[in-house]
Amino acid sequence: MLVNSKSGALISIRDRGLLYGDGVFRTLLARDGIALHRQQHLDKLQHDCAQLGITCPALSILSSELDEVLLQYPDGVVKLIVTRGIGGRGYAPSADAQPSHIWDVTAVPQYPQDWYSHGVVVRVCDIRLSEQPRLAGIKHLNRLENVLAAAESGAADSAEGLLLDGQGRVIEGTRSNLFLLCDGCLITPQLHRCGVAGVQRDRVLAYARAQGMMVQIRDVMLAEVYWADEVFLVNSVFGVWSVRELGERRWQKRTFATRLRTELTQGEW
Amino acid sequence: MLVNSKSGALISIRDRGLLYGDGVFRTLLARDGIALHRQQHLDKLQHDCAQLGITCPALSILSSELDEVLLQYPDGVVKLIVTRGIGGRGYAPSADAQPSHIWDVTAVPQYPQDWYSHGVVVRVCDIRLSEQPRLAGIKHLNRLENVLAAAESGAADSAEGLLLDGQGRVIEGTRSNLFLLCDGCLITPQLHRCGVAGVQRDRVLAYARAQGMMVQIRDVMLAEVYWADEVFLVNSVFGVWSVRELGERRWQKRTFATRLRTELTQGEW
Repeated sequence: MLVNSKSGALISIRDRGLLYGDGVFRTLLARDGIALHRQQHLDKLQHDCAQLGITCPALSILSSELDEVLLQYPDGVVKLIVTRGIGGRGYAPSADAQPSHIWDVTAVPQYPQDWYSHGVVVRVCDIRLSEQPRLAGIKHLNRLENVLAAAESGAADSAEGLLLDGQGRVIEGTRSNLFLLCDGCLITPQLHRCGVAGVQRDRVLAYARAQGMMVQIRDVMLAEVYWADEVFLVNSVFGVWSVRELGERRWQKRTFATRLRTELTQGEW
Repeated sequence: MLVNSKSGALISIRDRGLLYGDGVFRTLLARDGIALHRQQHLDKLQHDCAQLGITCPALSILSSELDEVLLQYPDGVVKLIVTRGIGGRGYAPSADAQPSHIWDVTAVPQYPQDWYSHGVVVRVCDIRLSEQPRLAGIKHLNRLENVLAAAESGAADSAEGLLLDGQGRVIEGTRSNLFLLCDGCLITPQLHRCGVAGVQRDRVLAYARAQGMMVQIRDVMLAEVYWADEVFLVNSVFGVWSVRELGERRWQKRTFATRLRTELTQGEW
């Protein structure tokens, strides 16, 4: 664990990350000393910081610290948090605030092998995502909606929950992005009102476009999920999970998701 | 500063308060060793914890720790944070998580005396509050909207900014609650979709009802603010501020707000 480039596991109680959730984060999978898709994650971190007006630490520093972390923890889930740091008067950020940055590593979650080979059971969360265009797409530290979704009764009976907005549009999973395959067209919800745009989502889109597939990024109503030929979820830790069950609907088909998992593991998308 | 009943100013980087903003807080004003309206604040803290399913530390413990804090810092702004603590698998809270609680004290902000005697200049924020009924009213740690509002250009030229929702309803100030006086009727926005219900707001409502005033808690469109006879903002730190200017509108009248400030200071509302 590193806190502001020093070994440690503690942070000031005056850090705005704690006080206001005023920061962003990334979750990278490390295997055999390699952090997968590290450049995409660092680019996304920089992008999200800019969206919030947080000065992102230099990528050269983050990159060399990541090397240090990987030497000590070659396998695990690497979390990188950047906050606006300490200071400012109440909510107003100080112009000269020094951002904080934090590295932490936890064990890779061991999901049932069956979830990869036969797909996962998914449910629809009760809570609806609020719409905030200024925060949409950003992986920021205001994650109470995800917490409440994951705490719902019934959450333990499924591998993932789908989050809808107040209009009944499906946006994402609680910790993943959602894709549908309909008549050969790849569809994923647009994330300009709410939701988090993950690195793995970008990689799927890049792969699909490189294959010449028709791709649609648009509003998706829940009903469309039930009609889809294939449904799958992606994130940087578990990779790709086919959905095999949602309510009464069962899917047998997972041809594309299976190929995708192989391609994303091998290729540099 | 106390962190989990021990002297200190640091917290674990794995605390869910930092990771997800998974917690709540209170801001109390301490004067001459007395924390104003402490019981209302502790009650509200307990209520907000319950809303999020966080186990609130025993009020007897919090109360005796507050006494300890006040002995050391008889004057200041006392902040109390309760988070869900460490643990859980990703967003899902662990059933046996031990909450964290944190005390901190900062200097009382010195606002211009003029703001109390002649009222404040207020602006309308650009950012619109998102609607999340599950979090509305709660003083939780997901405060990025307030941060973005306070960081807007123009924020420094006014004492406070009014936050509207996406439908043009006015909800609150960035760090205060809003009241209008219209033909002798006291009006304040309802906070079941967004906003924070402060202790000082409750006290104003209690006072007005005890005076036999007509009180309305309902949706308020921004236009109504311009029509109001008196407009004022309240919170636990500055107390009551009349609004004297919003855009082109000027108010001379502050009879009610002036009386209210005296009554709230003296009375146990």
